[in-house]
Amino acid sequence: MKLTFVLVHGSMHDGSCWDRVIAELSRQGHAAYAPTMAGHGAGAGHFFTQADCVDSVVDYILERDLSDFVLAGHSFAGIVIPNVAERVAARVNRVVFQNAMVLEDGECIYDVITPEHQQMFDAILKKEGDRTNWMLPFEVFRERFINDADLETAREVYARLKPVCVYSQNEKINMRGFQRLNVPRSYINFTDDIVLPHGEYAWYPRMAARLGLCRVVQKPGSHEVCYTNPGLLAEALIEAGRP
Amino acid sequence: MKLTFVLVHGSMHDGSCWDRVIAELSRQGHAAYAPTMAGHGAGAGHFFTQADCVDSVVDYILERDLSDFVLAGHSFAGIVIPNVAERVAARVNRVVFQNAMVLEDGECIYDVITPEHQQMFDAILKKEGDRTNWMLPFEVFRERFINDADLETAREVYARLKPVCVYSQNEKINMRGFQRLNVPRSYINFTDDIVLPHGEYAWYPRMAARLGLCRVVQKPGSHEVCYTNPGLLAEALIEAGRP
Amino acid sequence: MKLTFVLVHGSMHDGSCWDRVIAELSRQGHAAYAPTMAGHGAGAGHFFTQADCVDSVVDYILERDLSDFVLAGHSFAGIVIPNVAERVAARVNRVVFQNAMVLEDGECIYDVITPEHQQMFDAILKKEGDRTNWMLPFEVFRERFINDADLETAREVYARLKPVCVYSQNEKINMRGFQRLNVPRSYINFTDDIVLPHGEYAWYPRMAARLGLCRVVQKPGSHEVCYTNPGLLAEALIEAGRP
Repeated sequence: MKLTFVLVHGSMHDGSCWDRVIAELSRQGHAAYAPTMAGHGAGAGHFFTQADCVDSVVDYILERDLSDFVLAGHSFAGIVIPNVAERVAARVNRVVFQNAMVLEDGECIYDVITPEHQQMFDAILKKEGDRTNWMLPFEVFRERFINDADLETAREVYARLKPVCVYSQNEKINMRGFQRLNVPRSYINFTDDIVLPHGEYAWYPRMAARLGLCRVVQKPGSHEVCYTNPGLLAEALIEAGRP
Repeated sequence: MKLTFVLVHGSMHDGSCWDRVIAELSRQGHAAYAPTMAGHGAGAGHFFTQADCVDSVVDYILERDLSDFVLAGHSFAGIVIPNVAERVAARVNRVVFQNAMVLEDGECIYDVITPEHQQMFDAILKKEGDRTNWMLPFEVFRERFINDADLETAREVYARLKPVCVYSQNEKINMRGFQRLNVPRSYINFTDDIVLPHGEYAWYPRMAARLGLCRVVQKPGSHEVCYTNPGLLAEALIEAGRP
Repeated sequence: MKLTFVLVHGSMHDGSCWDRVIAELSRQGHAAYAPTMAGHGAGAGHFFTQADCVDSVVDYILERDLSDFVLAGHSFAGIVIPNVAERVAARVNRVVFQNAMVLEDGECIYDVITPEHQQMFDAILKKEGDRTNWMLPFEVFRERFINDADLETAREVYARLKPVCVYSQNEKINMRGFQRLNVPRSYINFTDDIVLPHGEYAWYPRMAARLGLCRVVQKPGSHEVCYTNPGLLAEALIEAGRP
């Protein structure tokens, strides 16, 4: 069965992070599209809201008249794809979260991260305000985001990242429309992803538990498998996205 | 070392679910037997008690005079094999639980499932009583039981399932005899089995912790690996079952 | 990139447990050294302190003038390598814990093991005092330490183990120096290691959470992967140890 995917990147990334995943999906006969959200890629460094991100993905879908697709989101995109799904519900077969945020109605990202990360953001907010752009230190990226890569790959991927507006961590998200939506959902858990550290604050099973009936697909790999193992990520997307 | 297995199926299944596992075990020189429990297979749709299940497996073992074997049970069979082991203790080398219920003395299945599943059974019991037969909806089977299969396989396996009498969820089990038994035990955890969702109510480590000294074997795969990956299940059974 | 490792064995073991791992690392062009700690190997059966263990590893490093290396420790060695790192800090590039104890300042091993194991040690201490040597029963070793091996391998490895002085379980460790040290750290979690049973008392993520910013590498295998899968352990050491 041939599938169509709309793949939505995470924070600091842009649509190009999916390039090698799309190549693998295409090789297997599937179609895949990877929009870059507002405030990311060429638009990085500017203020943006979650609504801007949602609009940019919805516009991308409508411009191309995409339908009958799997809507997948990674990391930060977990707060974007539920509202995209709500807006273009008739076009979406399934929503797939890959180590992605799943918020309760009215929550923001700040509410679900560890106390240590909250303190870090508190310090930034106090000093620079919520319109400032923030960049992850390399050391943290290397150890927690791309723990399965060698140093050279870690540096290459880090060089592609762009700062993100701190406002996005504190914006409360409306999840009521998505919660009412009867769209099938899957959660992909890469088991070496320690961006949210394993245990109480982990991606999985915590975030998947918020989705109700949900197919789970697990594979070994870090937060940056789009770079470190794009073939396995393609496999996970197919297993999670098929009917 | 050549092993002999008695493999006991889970709820809604019958002995034939092990066919491809047995073929793989045989190919490697091991012997394996797979009785169908009372109230399952051809007997599905009738009222049965846990004692009926135990009797049918014990009878199967005695009729064939099986001994020196590994007694393995999947899912629901976790409430059957402890009492089988107690009844034919001298014949059993080891007891193996594969993503199976392990109850404390006097518990029933209802006591260990999630509050959501309890509410579902409460509604059935209130409406139809405990002698009614119940069938898992396909949607739940596809997402939670056989998450590692394609849709065609999911449909084929679902077509083989038979309804189960709700009474079996509420029957309290005597575990005192098994707890006194000094038989070695193993727990096989297929890490993508989300029939009991990962977290507080998960199969593993929760159920294994109730077994005391216990060998653990883990492999990737869903609740239905007997169908989706029989070769890997055979491997797990050998690793769990050998001395 | 070619790496140098100093590999520190766990309790009951000696430096020779790394032989096949070192062979594999060497084959890939890396250098590796495996000292035997005081009170272990030929010195087993004698009283020793944690300071003796630290001294013996530091002496080994200084005698060979090793520098620019990854300091890795398994199991019990987790209470030794932090103080070694503190003593020869300028020589150590990274500290790697492989299913190893990570203590808080002033804790002893007894403080972090399960209540069941605490009771077992209480009984030994009451009966024989803390200078007695204690040997793990084969049955426990076979099921919990080397659950991924066949019986023959389990027996061969067990025959190599030596008793350990019970005092080492109760000695409080000074971790303040290590905590101030800015050395990168990694945690290797072999996911089938049930020496500390999975759940509340598990090695991972509990011990890794005590290390702050920490790279995590996970692989399938038991506590005794140095024997059951030395190639995969070498791979894990490289992934955990590289810059």
